[in-house]
Amino acid sequence: MNLKFPEIASAAVFSIHLLSAQTNEPANDWKPAPSNQGGKEYPQVNSEGRVKFRVVAPKAQSVGVSFRDSSAFTKGEDGAWIGYSRPLDQGFHYYTINIDGAEVPDPNSLFFYGAGRWGSAVEIPAVDRDFYALKNVPHGHLRELWYFSKSSNANRHAFVYTPPDYDKSGHKRYPALYLQHGAGEDETGWGRQGHAGWIMDNLLAEGRTRPFIIVMEFGGNPFAGAQRRTNTASAGASGGLGSTNNATGPGGRSGRFNFNFTAFEHVLVDDLIPYIDANFRTIADQPHRGMAGLSMGGMQTRTITLAHLDRFSHIGVFSGGSIGLTNITDMATFKKKAKLVFVSYGSKENGAAAAKANVEALKQAGINSVYYESPDTAHEWQSWRRSLHEFATLLFRN
Amino acid sequence: MNLKFPEIASAAVFSIHLLSAQTNEPANDWKPAPSNQGGKEYPQVNSEGRVKFRVVAPKAQSVGVSFRDSSAFTKGEDGAWIGYSRPLDQGFHYYTINIDGAEVPDPNSLFFYGAGRWGSAVEIPAVDRDFYALKNVPHGHLRELWYFSKSSNANRHAFVYTPPDYDKSGHKRYPALYLQHGAGEDETGWGRQGHAGWIMDNLLAEGRTRPFIIVMEFGGNPFAGAQRRTNTASAGASGGLGSTNNATGPGGRSGRFNFNFTAFEHVLVDDLIPYIDANFRTIADQPHRGMAGLSMGGMQTRTITLAHLDRFSHIGVFSGGSIGLTNITDMATFKKKAKLVFVSYGSKENGAAAAKANVEALKQAGINSVYYESPDTAHEWQSWRRSLHEFATLLFRN
Repeated sequence: MNLKFPEIASAAVFSIHLLSAQTNEPANDWKPAPSNQGGKEYPQVNSEGRVKFRVVAPKAQSVGVSFRDSSAFTKGEDGAWIGYSRPLDQGFHYYTINIDGAEVPDPNSLFFYGAGRWGSAVEIPAVDRDFYALKNVPHGHLRELWYFSKSSNANRHAFVYTPPDYDKSGHKRYPALYLQHGAGEDETGWGRQGHAGWIMDNLLAEGRTRPFIIVMEFGGNPFAGAQRRTNTASAGASGGLGSTNNATGPGGRSGRFNFNFTAFEHVLVDDLIPYIDANFRTIADQPHRGMAGLSMGGMQTRTITLAHLDRFSHIGVFSGGSIGLTNITDMATFKKKAKLVFVSYGSKENGAAAAKANVEALKQAGINSVYYESPDTAHEWQSWRRSLHEFATLLFRN
Repeated sequence: MNLKFPEIASAAVFSIHLLSAQTNEPANDWKPAPSNQGGKEYPQVNSEGRVKFRVVAPKAQSVGVSFRDSSAFTKGEDGAWIGYSRPLDQGFHYYTINIDGAEVPDPNSLFFYGAGRWGSAVEIPAVDRDFYALKNVPHGHLRELWYFSKSSNANRHAFVYTPPDYDKSGHKRYPALYLQHGAGEDETGWGRQGHAGWIMDNLLAEGRTRPFIIVMEFGGNPFAGAQRRTNTASAGASGGLGSTNNATGPGGRSGRFNFNFTAFEHVLVDDLIPYIDANFRTIADQPHRGMAGLSMGGMQTRTITLAHLDRFSHIGVFSGGSIGLTNITDMATFKKKAKLVFVSYGSKENGAAAAKANVEALKQAGINSVYYESPDTAHEWQSWRRSLHEFATLLFRN
C-alpha cells in the first residue's frame, strides 16, 4: 500500500477513532476551540466533537458543565478540574460551568447572548466552516446604531450589515433583508455567532449573491415576565452602558411564554423600516424587502409578512415552522406578492417533514418555494448559518 | 421648616449617610448597577459608591470579589452569598468573582475586555454621567470592520465611529481621530465602556464639536509573551468566531512588559490609515488627522505622532505621560505641525503634576497645549471618558 500524505493522515485518524471505540477513551487530538478567548488553551475540541474543559477551582468540591451526558470532572494536583462532554454536533453550542452549585460562565470562553443571558459557548469546527470563515476578501461593515422608536417610546438598538461596495457605490441603492434571532437571543446573534457578515462577504466574493443590506433588531423575549429590558444588554461596542434611558424590549408584559408579536410588528413596520429607508440607500419598495428569522424569528416572519404582503416579497423561515396553504387567506394576492418562500430545518429536528410537505404544496400552487435541510444538525446555529447561506443566493433575483 | 420634595429627599439621604457613618452599615439605597445584564437585580450600587454583590453558590465554602477591602461574603438560607465592596470611585471598574478558589465572571454582569480578558465590570453612576448618556439625539454609527494588513500579514479588526450626518452629507469629507485603548484592553474599549459614540453624539447635538470620524484598533498587549492573538477576541457582533485565519496582534514576541510599539506603528501608518482614507470620506491630510490614547495608548500616541508629524496634527495623551520639551528634537517643525497637544490625568493619579508642568512649558514655547484634570478619579475609564469629552471640543478647530 502506497499512501500519500493525506491518506496517511486519514488512516491515522481512523486508527485513533478505532482505538477510542475500543477503549472508550476520547480521541487524543485536542485543539483549542475557536470560540475561546484569545490565548486560552481550553476548552479543547477533538475530532469526535467532544469538548475537554479545564476549570481552575482549587478549593471546590464539585465542578460540572451543562452539556448532558458529560463526564464527571476530576481535580488534578494543580487545582484544575478536567471534564469531557459527549460528542456534540458540529457547530455552536451554549453552555454553563457549575462550581459548587454556582452556575457561571467559563472564564476561558468568549461570551454570547443566548438562553436569555450573556454566557459561554463552544464552537465545534464544522466540515463546511469555510463558508463563514474570515478571508482576505472585501468585507462589509457591521454597524451598530441607535434610533428612537415612537411605537415603544424608547431608544432602540439595531445592527446593520452593509455590503463591501456600499461606501463606494455613490447613489446605488440596495435591497434590504430584516433578519431575526430566536427566543432567548437578541439582535447580536446573527452578526456574532451567526456570522452573517462573513457569510455575505464570502458569497459576494464568489459572485453567488447580489449585495443587499441586512437589518438585525431585538424581537423580544417570550420567556421574560416583564417588558423592561435595559439597553445595557447590548453586545455591541458602543452598547448601552450607563444610560439614563431604558431601551424597551417589545415582548409582552405577562406570561412566561408570550408569543404575541404585535409590539415587535409595530416597531418593525412603523419605526425600523422607515428609519432604515431614511438612513440607508435602500430600494424602498416591496419587491426589494425581505424578512427571515430562526425559530421564534421564523414564526415572527410568517406572522408579520403574511400581515404585510405590501411590504415584504422574500420570506425565510428557518427552524420555525412553515407556511401552509391554510395560512394563506388570499392566494391570488400571495402569488403576486410573495416572490420567494424559503423554509429550512436541521435534519435532526422535528418538524422537518411537515415543513417539506408544506413547501411542496406551495410549489404545486405555483409559489416559488424552496425547502432546505441542514445535514446532521439540530435546532442550533449551524442549521441557521447554512440556511442564511442558502437563502442569500436566492434573494432579490427577480 | 417647610421643606419641598427635593429638599426632603436630600434631608433623607443626609440622614441615611449620617446613620451609616455612625453604625458603619452601608447606606440602604441600593439600585441595580447600569452595567448589569438585562433584568438582573444584582450587583447593586448605593449612594456611597459601594457595591452589593449576590452570588448563588449553594454548596460553596467561600465566595469573594476582587475589589480590595471588600467585606466577607455571607451565605443566606437561599444559597446566595452577599458581600459588599468598599466605596468605589464614580465610574467603571473591572472585577472578578471568586468561588472556592475559582476566578470567574459574575454571571449578573455584562462583559468587557480589560485586564487581558473578557470579564465583569461595574458602573458606579457618576455625577456627570449625562455627557455619555444615551439620548434621543441624532446618533452616529459604530462600524465593525475587517481589513487586510500587509505589515502583519493578517486580517485585522477595527471599529469606526461615523458621525450622525455622515450617510446624508453627500461628498462631504471629515477629519479622523485615531483613538487607542490601554494595556490589557483592546479595540472594543472606547466604543463599549468608553462610550465614545454617545460622547460624540451628545457633543454634536449641543454644537460643541465638529463632526469627525474615530478609528479604534488593537494596539497590542504588552503583558502577553506571545504575539499570537486570535481574532476570536472580538467583542463586536460579527467578531471573530470560527475563523481559519488568525488576526495577529502587533505586540512584541518576548518579554512580559513589551512597550515596543514598532509593529503597531507599521500597522497604523502603513495599513490602517491608508485603508481608512480609501474607504471613508476623510480629509486625508495632516491638518485633519489626530491621534490620542489612554495610558499605554497615550505612550503610543506620543511615540508615533512625534515620529510622524507629517501625518498627525492633533495629539491627545490621557493618563499616559506627556510631551516635554526634551521630547521634541526640532521645535520649529513641531510648532508648525502640532496644532494641539492635549494632556490629561485623573486627580488621584501620580504623574498629574509633572504632566501639568510639561504642558505649561509647551505653552511657554508657543505650542497650543491644554492640560485637563478629571476630578476625584484615578487611572480608570471615568478619567478617559471625561478626557475625550474635553479633547473633542478642541479638535480640528484650526
